[in-house]
Amino acid sequence: MELDLIRRLSAPNTTKVLLCVLDGLGGMPGPRGRTELEEAHPRHLDRLAEEGVSGQTIPVGYGITTGSGPGHLALFGYDPLQFEVGRGVLEATGIDFPLGPNDLAARGNLCTVGADGLITDRRAGRIATEKTAEICDLLQREVHLDGVEMFIRPVREHRFALVFRGEGLRPELNETDPQREGVAPLEIVATDPAAERTAALAREFVAQARRLLGDRDQANALTLRGWATPPSLPQFPELWKLRAAAVAVYPMYRGLARLVGMDVLPTGTTFESEIETLRANWDNYDFFFMHFKYTDSAGEDGDFARKVKAIQDFDAKVPELLALNPNVLVIAGDHSTPAVMADHSWHPVPTVIHGDHTRTDAVHRFNEPETLNGGLGIFPAKELLPIAFAHARRLSRFGA
Amino acid sequence: MELDLIRRLSAPNTTKVLLCVLDGLGGMPGPRGRTELEEAHPRHLDRLAEEGVSGQTIPVGYGITTGSGPGHLALFGYDPLQFEVGRGVLEATGIDFPLGPNDLAARGNLCTVGADGLITDRRAGRIATEKTAEICDLLQREVHLDGVEMFIRPVREHRFALVFRGEGLRPELNETDPQREGVAPLEIVATDPAAERTAALAREFVAQARRLLGDRDQANALTLRGWATPPSLPQFPELWKLRAAAVAVYPMYRGLARLVGMDVLPTGTTFESEIETLRANWDNYDFFFMHFKYTDSAGEDGDFARKVKAIQDFDAKVPELLALNPNVLVIAGDHSTPAVMADHSWHPVPTVIHGDHTRTDAVHRFNEPETLNGGLGIFPAKELLPIAFAHARRLSRFGA
Repeated sequence: MELDLIRRLSAPNTTKVLLCVLDGLGGMPGPRGRTELEEAHPRHLDRLAEEGVSGQTIPVGYGITTGSGPGHLALFGYDPLQFEVGRGVLEATGIDFPLGPNDLAARGNLCTVGADGLITDRRAGRIATEKTAEICDLLQREVHLDGVEMFIRPVREHRFALVFRGEGLRPELNETDPQREGVAPLEIVATDPAAERTAALAREFVAQARRLLGDRDQANALTLRGWATPPSLPQFPELWKLRAAAVAVYPMYRGLARLVGMDVLPTGTTFESEIETLRANWDNYDFFFMHFKYTDSAGEDGDFARKVKAIQDFDAKVPELLALNPNVLVIAGDHSTPAVMADHSWHPVPTVIHGDHTRTDAVHRFNEPETLNGGLGIFPAKELLPIAFAHARRLSRFGA
Repeated sequence: MELDLIRRLSAPNTTKVLLCVLDGLGGMPGPRGRTELEEAHPRHLDRLAEEGVSGQTIPVGYGITTGSGPGHLALFGYDPLQFEVGRGVLEATGIDFPLGPNDLAARGNLCTVGADGLITDRRAGRIATEKTAEICDLLQREVHLDGVEMFIRPVREHRFALVFRGEGLRPELNETDPQREGVAPLEIVATDPAAERTAALAREFVAQARRLLGDRDQANALTLRGWATPPSLPQFPELWKLRAAAVAVYPMYRGLARLVGMDVLPTGTTFESEIETLRANWDNYDFFFMHFKYTDSAGEDGDFARKVKAIQDFDAKVPELLALNPNVLVIAGDHSTPAVMADHSWHPVPTVIHGDHTRTDAVHRFNEPETLNGGLGIFPAKELLPIAFAHARRLSRFGA
């Protein structure tokens, strides 16, 4: 549904919608000819499929293998081809940095250069995160730029996130990592004339950083890439006229939820703590997005058995979700991560809507072959939430 | 997938993709209540469906009966509603005339006029192709136009193709066939002021032709229609970053393939020779389009049994195609031509993708009723090739 139409038709109600995203949910037949979901035989998810209405989502488009960022935007109801989230923005949101509308974000690597300025180690020996944190603290204190605020935060090992905040900053800058050693980091240049001032600021940042780090044997220089400004995403609570909360262990998903205007709830580091957080906040919100990471990480590792186990672990908690009595419970995936491919893929993703007003179909099992026969058909992921909100009677009639 | 996105995500690989188009593949239940595909019981195609992933393509749009031109453009990944190929262009490409970007093409008919200039036979007695060839040779030699090159080629019987080559030629000209006898061929006029110069050139061509043919009893005049310039189609090898070849017996399909930038391989006049050509060139290309005509011609003739036989003839050769070991083999049709309709139709067309990374579905037979349950669903034909290239790992990830 177009966002303008959502804005026009959405209507407040007292119903509650819970969207559970199992990251990389979709799979493929493994060693025994059955997919992860078939092998897992998840009896609670199967019951949701039996009682609810199933289908398969196409995350971004036919044949497109998506990253988790666009995959989630689609599940939040946004067309990921229209709203692109740049890598610098994902890196900053991924460490819970609260990006604002005037921010320009980049991903950074600490590297090591010799006396001649040529890179000897592009990753500074994969320096410990704590060391990177110390360096970031130093640069945060000592670097001063005219007319913009600067924020620098450690990510992991040699990686950091850099944010400039100010009016008129532009992302049209080149990447400065030459992708090999024995050469100097590239100069920052504007790839669009409108970005000349931003390029000058970035060069000044690099120059000051080089002076401050120059005495070090290791991690005495840096490279920057993935320059991006936050997309101006229409805000979810305003579009849908409701209070929306996100529960996610991993920072990137919290960051994405924050970009669309959801309240990000503090939670622990386990799925159990996510459920606890959900329960504690159940009365305060109309919509919840809850993220489950472990299906994807197992799939990415090519570990079929562990992905099966992750599905079973999620499945075991479904009764606790149902006990909250959501009007509509949605189980979805942001993309497929078949363990046999050890990678994200383009294959459509099983989904099920359970709760009020679902017209049941003949699907009895929540898996790839069966959900093909579901009442939702195969459809774009960005339409899933509008359908769910329809079931929650949060969309008014179109026309008379 | 939008072409800009293809350009951005396509990535070279060593995989090979073979697209086999069975012209007019889709059918309808015949005398015994079974479709041509059901009746044919093609065991090799059934095996592809069993092992691969099936679905049905909508050639151009819901309810649209398409010609082979737009039907093929869609299978090549282009939106046929965005890129229209005019009839003059199809006629010229249909006789292997290599159209260039500054060409204007028309379809021509030789006709017979009386001493009063009024048409006595719109088709010049369906004059023999060899006679039309002689007339074309004469006009090619003797007609001279200021500022443009002219090419005239026989097609079949009284029909010929006319091409003007030069800067600024415009297709906004009327058709000069009055569609009845007893009146003169119409004057050529510009239907847009920008085409005045082109109209004058075309009138000059007609005038010189009339003088050169005036002494003849038959085929002493001509009519022109279908004025068209070649569409500027983004080129397939550049879009997909690969080497693409076409193998087709019939000229129109070679012409269409040439328009999108495929190499058109010389081949014989039978499907056996097409396979031979495919085999001989297998190492030199990444993508092959192979065309099989006989399903459509039988369907158009309303010959149910012959269409069944054509499917079986193709089926018998599938092992030879598999022996080439393509990473991805796609079986598709450009449109349906149900024998019971003796015509093209709008019905969706069965398709199957076989090879690497296919997520299997419950389809065991390659026919209309069964492919409805396929993992690809019912989807736009222009998305088929992006999906196939995804299976061939020739599309990189979208976003992080």
